[in-house]
Amino acid sequence: MATSSIAQTPEPPYFAVIFTSQRTDGERGYNTVADRMVELAAQQPGFLGVESVRGADGFGITVSYWRSLDDISAWRNHSEHIVAQDTGKRVWYADYQLRICEVQRSKSNGRNA
Amino acid sequence: MATSSIAQTPEPPYFAVIFTSQRTDGERGYNTVADRMVELAAQQPGFLGVESVRGADGFGITVSYWRSLDDISAWRNHSEHIVAQDTGKRVWYADYQLRICEVQRSKSNGRNA
Repeated sequence: MATSSIAQTPEPPYFAVIFTSQRTDGERGYNTVADRMVELAAQQPGFLGVESVRGADGFGITVSYWRSLDDISAWRNHSEHIVAQDTGKRVWYADYQLRICEVQRSKSNGRNA
Repeated sequence: MATSSIAQTPEPPYFAVIFTSQRTDGERGYNTVADRMVELAAQQPGFLGVESVRGADGFGITVSYWRSLDDISAWRNHSEHIVAQDTGKRVWYADYQLRICEVQRSKSNGRNA
């Protein structure tokens, strides 16, 4: 995935969805759908960016950034995303946790501004 | 690091520090200090958990969870952590972004409760 970089987000406040997950063994069609979800998310209203990493042990963190909670709800209810979420629960994720947050402050080294 | 698992956090609200970074090339003493910082953070008042992943390309996401903004400030100002932060800026990180968030909602698959 082309998401291994720091997202260029605006000044806070904005919102973040922290999705932490442990993959099941085997590919099972995961990568194609994961890439498609990143592509589709980026087309949604209020999308501000995404950062994603998965380690060799199958543990991963994906953080997506959004303008508002309503934008997050709309993406959660996107029909193609609902299908992916359902397959995720049944097939791809042994375990996951999703946290919805308000980003209140941010700070960088200034090199990625 | 023994942090490749989903943090067992309480019901929201609580706070999260999302630290996204791109490592410079070479180890340069990073791993020992990174492990020590996780160990030290876990001893601080208000620490609720940490999740961390770094990919083979050196891009990483670490999310630490805290009871309050005051707890986050205290950890930021811990003397040993200040030294590590300074070395991080000078030596270990080509780029980074730190975001401080209030976690407002969370949801899991129930397997990690």
